[in-house]
Amino acid sequence: MRIFENMESRVRGYIRSFPVIFESAKGSIMTDEMGKEYIDFFAGAGTLNYGHNNPQISQALIEYLQADGVVHGLDMATTAKKRFLQKFSDTILGPRGLDYKIQFTGPTGTNAVETALKLARMVKARSNIVCFTNGYHGLTMGALAITGNTHYRDEAYISRSNVSFLPYDGYMGPEINTLDLFRKMLADNSSGLDIPAAVILETIQAEGGVNIARSEWLKELADICYQFDILLIIDDIQVGNGRSGDFFSFEAAGIKPDIVCLSKAIGGGLPLAFILMRPDLDQWKPGEHTGTFRGNNMAFVASTQALSYWDTNDLSEAVHYKGAVMERELTAIAEKYPELDASVRGRGMIYGLEIPERGLSSQISERCFENGLVIELAGGDDQVVKFLPALIIDEETLLKGISIVDRSINEILKEKHENLKGEL
Amino acid sequence: MRIFENMESRVRGYIRSFPVIFESAKGSIMTDEMGKEYIDFFAGAGTLNYGHNNPQISQALIEYLQADGVVHGLDMATTAKKRFLQKFSDTILGPRGLDYKIQFTGPTGTNAVETALKLARMVKARSNIVCFTNGYHGLTMGALAITGNTHYRDEAYISRSNVSFLPYDGYMGPEINTLDLFRKMLADNSSGLDIPAAVILETIQAEGGVNIARSEWLKELADICYQFDILLIIDDIQVGNGRSGDFFSFEAAGIKPDIVCLSKAIGGGLPLAFILMRPDLDQWKPGEHTGTFRGNNMAFVASTQALSYWDTNDLSEAVHYKGAVMERELTAIAEKYPELDASVRGRGMIYGLEIPERGLSSQISERCFENGLVIELAGGDDQVVKFLPALIIDEETLLKGISIVDRSINEILKEKHENLKGEL
Amino acid sequence: MRIFENMESRVRGYIRSFPVIFESAKGSIMTDEMGKEYIDFFAGAGTLNYGHNNPQISQALIEYLQADGVVHGLDMATTAKKRFLQKFSDTILGPRGLDYKIQFTGPTGTNAVETALKLARMVKARSNIVCFTNGYHGLTMGALAITGNTHYRDEAYISRSNVSFLPYDGYMGPEINTLDLFRKMLADNSSGLDIPAAVILETIQAEGGVNIARSEWLKELADICYQFDILLIIDDIQVGNGRSGDFFSFEAAGIKPDIVCLSKAIGGGLPLAFILMRPDLDQWKPGEHTGTFRGNNMAFVASTQALSYWDTNDLSEAVHYKGAVMERELTAIAEKYPELDASVRGRGMIYGLEIPERGLSSQISERCFENGLVIELAGGDDQVVKFLPALIIDEETLLKGISIVDRSINEILKEKHENLKGEL
Amino acid sequence: MRIFENMESRVRGYIRSFPVIFESAKGSIMTDEMGKEYIDFFAGAGTLNYGHNNPQISQALIEYLQADGVVHGLDMATTAKKRFLQKFSDTILGPRGLDYKIQFTGPTGTNAVETALKLARMVKARSNIVCFTNGYHGLTMGALAITGNTHYRDEAYISRSNVSFLPYDGYMGPEINTLDLFRKMLADNSSGLDIPAAVILETIQAEGGVNIARSEWLKELADICYQFDILLIIDDIQVGNGRSGDFFSFEAAGIKPDIVCLSKAIGGGLPLAFILMRPDLDQWKPGEHTGTFRGNNMAFVASTQALSYWDTNDLSEAVHYKGAVMERELTAIAEKYPELDASVRGRGMIYGLEIPERGLSSQISERCFENGLVIELAGGDDQVVKFLPALIIDEETLLKGISIVDRSINEILKEKHENLKGEL
Repeated sequence: MRIFENMESRVRGYIRSFPVIFESAKGSIMTDEMGKEYIDFFAGAGTLNYGHNNPQISQALIEYLQADGVVHGLDMATTAKKRFLQKFSDTILGPRGLDYKIQFTGPTGTNAVETALKLARMVKARSNIVCFTNGYHGLTMGALAITGNTHYRDEAYISRSNVSFLPYDGYMGPEINTLDLFRKMLADNSSGLDIPAAVILETIQAEGGVNIARSEWLKELADICYQFDILLIIDDIQVGNGRSGDFFSFEAAGIKPDIVCLSKAIGGGLPLAFILMRPDLDQWKPGEHTGTFRGNNMAFVASTQALSYWDTNDLSEAVHYKGAVMERELTAIAEKYPELDASVRGRGMIYGLEIPERGLSSQISERCFENGLVIELAGGDDQVVKFLPALIIDEETLLKGISIVDRSINEILKEKHENLKGEL
Repeated sequence: MRIFENMESRVRGYIRSFPVIFESAKGSIMTDEMGKEYIDFFAGAGTLNYGHNNPQISQALIEYLQADGVVHGLDMATTAKKRFLQKFSDTILGPRGLDYKIQFTGPTGTNAVETALKLARMVKARSNIVCFTNGYHGLTMGALAITGNTHYRDEAYISRSNVSFLPYDGYMGPEINTLDLFRKMLADNSSGLDIPAAVILETIQAEGGVNIARSEWLKELADICYQFDILLIIDDIQVGNGRSGDFFSFEAAGIKPDIVCLSKAIGGGLPLAFILMRPDLDQWKPGEHTGTFRGNNMAFVASTQALSYWDTNDLSEAVHYKGAVMERELTAIAEKYPELDASVRGRGMIYGLEIPERGLSSQISERCFENGLVIELAGGDDQVVKFLPALIIDEETLLKGISIVDRSINEILKEKHENLKGEL
Repeated sequence: MRIFENMESRVRGYIRSFPVIFESAKGSIMTDEMGKEYIDFFAGAGTLNYGHNNPQISQALIEYLQADGVVHGLDMATTAKKRFLQKFSDTILGPRGLDYKIQFTGPTGTNAVETALKLARMVKARSNIVCFTNGYHGLTMGALAITGNTHYRDEAYISRSNVSFLPYDGYMGPEINTLDLFRKMLADNSSGLDIPAAVILETIQAEGGVNIARSEWLKELADICYQFDILLIIDDIQVGNGRSGDFFSFEAAGIKPDIVCLSKAIGGGLPLAFILMRPDLDQWKPGEHTGTFRGNNMAFVASTQALSYWDTNDLSEAVHYKGAVMERELTAIAEKYPELDASVRGRGMIYGLEIPERGLSSQISERCFENGLVIELAGGDDQVVKFLPALIIDEETLLKGISIVDRSINEILKEKHENLKGEL
Repeated sequence: MRIFENMESRVRGYIRSFPVIFESAKGSIMTDEMGKEYIDFFAGAGTLNYGHNNPQISQALIEYLQADGVVHGLDMATTAKKRFLQKFSDTILGPRGLDYKIQFTGPTGTNAVETALKLARMVKARSNIVCFTNGYHGLTMGALAITGNTHYRDEAYISRSNVSFLPYDGYMGPEINTLDLFRKMLADNSSGLDIPAAVILETIQAEGGVNIARSEWLKELADICYQFDILLIIDDIQVGNGRSGDFFSFEAAGIKPDIVCLSKAIGGGLPLAFILMRPDLDQWKPGEHTGTFRGNNMAFVASTQALSYWDTNDLSEAVHYKGAVMERELTAIAEKYPELDASVRGRGMIYGLEIPERGLSSQISERCFENGLVIELAGGDDQVVKFLPALIIDEETLLKGISIVDRSINEILKEKHENLKGEL
């Protein structure tokens, strides 16, 4: 590990949580250089919905390389891109009656978000953007401005321009409809909230602590946007791509955003990002927004394979089934250890176990890793253990992974009690 | 091509200049779906310095996939990353006596630039950044602010905050040392130029029109930065990676920047980006800057192979040799067609042929494409034909490509004369 | 009037509401060039708390001019300034146990607000400022950023930087404590609300529609500021200077702001503005903030006279008494005309009569003017008739003015009914 | 003096340079509480062009107060305002063939500048503003952004948004036409300089060190603005009102700005400010920009009197004559003391004596004060002694004041030599 310490910046993060060198990975299992195996409940922060080295995807990539397919082509037309567009149209947009235009951006989520914000501001000729408490949208300057967590913000470089944070669904407790404030401020000429070009949000805030916006709230928000001529942007980077059980996370609410940001799992494990936009919003001049890697052909090949999972309803049903398993098992854990004061929330196959006691969730994550499970935290104080397995995980591995969490909590609490006894 | 028109945003660019569907590519040759071959003088805007589907790189990627190597790992330690770090240290940093720390960012150039700006502002606790006329640094909000071209700027979304543009070397003609103004404004308490956290520039402005900063100018700039305690950031995304003949474009000037941005060719054709920083600048908190794809392991594998080209001096010498060929041939073209009033400039293997008559360079690029050459334009008015072949191109293909330019110009001028005659 | 139309910008405002040329004024009576008299319930938007041409003040000004006292002295020491400082210390600060330092600014309210914001940001080294819905703080760029009304904001020049609007007391109805949101967002690392340098507010929002913050709310706000190390700035420009019954509007709540902005009536009718600050906040460098007219000696002379009103408790008691008269009479009007659906609110001698029907308040104000009363509107939609008589108005004139409002409403409603009948 | 130290903020400035309490003043003589007299070469930083307590002005003010004229009237029409408009039209605008519209702003220079910037940005729907090195335009946030001196700028509160500083005339020496850079950057799509809404400048930078823009430079600048559809704003706050010999400082150059900012001496010693604008630029909505003291009637009365000086050519001729005297005498001083290495520059009745040796100009100003002369410094390092007497000063007093400077320099240099000898 020394070379990482010597050469890499102190900014490195996950390598500190999971301090081994991983050599190979397959499905939901990662293997380190010593041959130790780990179940992966992190799935590349939502990038690996189809698992590590999904055989279909790997095979397609190998064949593409062997055929000298175009690997890098900027935004030129390639056979791989053509096939991807066809597949995305046939499998995703068409069946859902969506007529979005697609714009490939630099292959990272933050690139997609920046593009969406630029487009909204240009089309509406307004600079203000409304975003929400606990939102996470990336760390380049435009995206950072709408990301709530102070961990990423330093007085010297943050930009607080033209951005208004409002409370997300449930932020003030179940009694208060946080949209009342938004609606009131929009209707009030003197509220200080200039009508924004767009509202941007995740329907499930993953990094923000697995906070879930209710369908009624999303519908009301869409109505408000329509009423005040505001664009609705859904950042579906982490919780789109089937994570919620539907391909898009907003399908269940029956809303149709004006712009959608996609990245992470859409590339089948490789870097890919794009936005979808209502056709009338497509007011760009040719070449007005660009980026060297906006046509990552390897990712097109991988993505085209991955999208085959959506030819039928099977994956969607599997996600709902395994999500129910997760909810049942995590609720059981929460009940088994009342001293954790834990709460469980989730949708589809993203679940959070919130543990109020400061630092306890970190201990659990660390112990899980020792016990063979990669699992990460979320929330402003890292107070939520986040369950984000690959969508294609088999039930046995899923249960085994959850049982490692159970065992790890058990161990920690036992040691805690013993320490307490020792102190007495 | 219809699917691209139907589904893709109007923002698409290169597909308009090169309106065919490319199927495969090898070295400096691209082949479209009809089997027509094109010599590539664009090299993925500098991403393909080692050619398309470089055999060593492809082979390594195939083997990595076959071995189920970790493809996506966020910033976790992997065997592929370890090997890359070792190779980069042994081949690039060590021999040059450089002790930079490395920070992987989202795998696009603009991500690296945003990271460099954030770091500089944080470390210096100053918000101002000095940048230069005709600079191009990317299009996310922080990077866009320091990119000069109005083509990318709309009143509704540009950010002009905390950025000061100054004239690049040669901007006011050969007589005027543009650094006089910078030095004077820094020394003058009342100039309106707040001492910046950093100066950022490309040593050769590629998109800006192949403008070349002289070594003396770069040295003087480095001195000014030192004198006024300003960080010097070199954006070596397009002209690093050997393009200038040295691995870093700033080596010839004998300067040592505080921060270096690398992307494009460093990934061997796959998306990769990082910054290098003086160790004492590495003041990040763990996880303070992050990004899903900042560890693109496929790119680590490709890059490790590509870096082998720097085990010896061979590539460097080849670049100098072929650069001389380019200069000779382009000068000959400029002299052969005096009515073009063309000028030639370049360094290493990046050359520009500037043609003042508005629109003529576009015609040349189009005609070249018909004649089997992919070549692009640069400069604020697209007035410069930009020669950017793969560094590993063989001399014969290089000469053949240039002869296509010659022939295309010949054809265009002949037609022009005939049209003129017809009109009389 | 033609010369005003020919020469003055279209931006002119009150001249449109009160389209006569005023020649002289005394106490609460203004006289136009035709000799017609008007009762003044506007009092120079709160500048004329001591009435027009208050005899004591006029006499002092005449004597000062006759003695060739220094009229303009930048911020040099003058006898007039010395006397003002002594008087302000003896009459206002001393008896209230306040040890504020005083900083004279350009003699307009917006200058004082800008100074307060700069000081807060400098001292705390944070750029964010929290302000409130319906707040009005002036129209220079820094002050405009914290002023809510869109009437004053155009996309091309507004600055939305480093400012966060939060709901004022009562904004979401009487059931909801709007500080809950502020407290929650401050405590939440991930809310997007960076800890501000300061909170700024009026305890009674005059322009915003005569909205009154309750004492408990102000106390809780002061507690929050203390807890999170945020400066509390009270903008007492319109409702300080005795308007509330106490000299400072915040005295009743028992809080002690860190910074107070004063202007309007403090100059006894002449332009004067300054801020008061906790001594430890006085971290300016000499001359760091300046302004040509920050020492308006004529205003020092006028102010010194005006402050004599505070030698005893008489004015304070008179304000409470006349405020009670206003509340009684306005409530009677509201009850007399139930179809207005009017509500009455106020404190001290500022009262608002809110009339929901769009445009009706404008008609009332216009009719009042025809009937000999100068009265203005407030609120985001000009829906509130604002009663702001001089504090020294005699009871008879006060009642006469209110009776004009009564009569004007009566006339308007009668005409409305007649029109309705005519239509049937 | 103790009360000033106890009660006033540390920010106080001139009171430190001139540490006495002034009691009265007449014409060019100020008298302190001890009865000591001082010649005034500062003239309220350009506010007292017509001298202290000009008898005509004082008399008019006294009569206005005695007649209970309206003192404070917001922007309502008053007899005093009507007379001022008529006088300004008859005496200033009419004879010069100018058809500007007038907009009264808060009565400080910075208020006028903020208004001009807002108007320009609104009308042009562009946010960028070009300003110049060493410019001084005020200290509220919008005006501060275009003020060069770092003394007034702190990282926490400066705004660097939407502002581009360019070199003023002569900034790079007499050989270089600094407009070449501006023109080149405007014509270059890729310069990073977005076409601004407006250019703002003083024709003579007073605070900036008495820097004088040549007529040809101003004419070329006006041409550039016309060519690129940019508004030209002249800030004539300090050097308008006859300071240059003409009423407006730009008359000599034969240009006609789109917007002019006036304040300081326009109020005859009392606070007054307004902008003049081309009629077609007057695109404000009623009440869109406002301010409590924008109709300072006392200042209208004073100004109407002061403008009588412009009924004939006498004052203009006197300024030219006395300006020539100043130039002659100051040049003689510069030649008499070659060790000062002083240079003289000026126009009309504003002159600067630049003394390179750091701190020497401060010593001279201090010694002058001891010797009975109020004189101030200018320039980024306070390196320029600034001569700014009232325009109506009599020649004898002018010469006497200059002789005090001569004597003070003489004393300082003598003491310096003696100290040097003592050290040897």
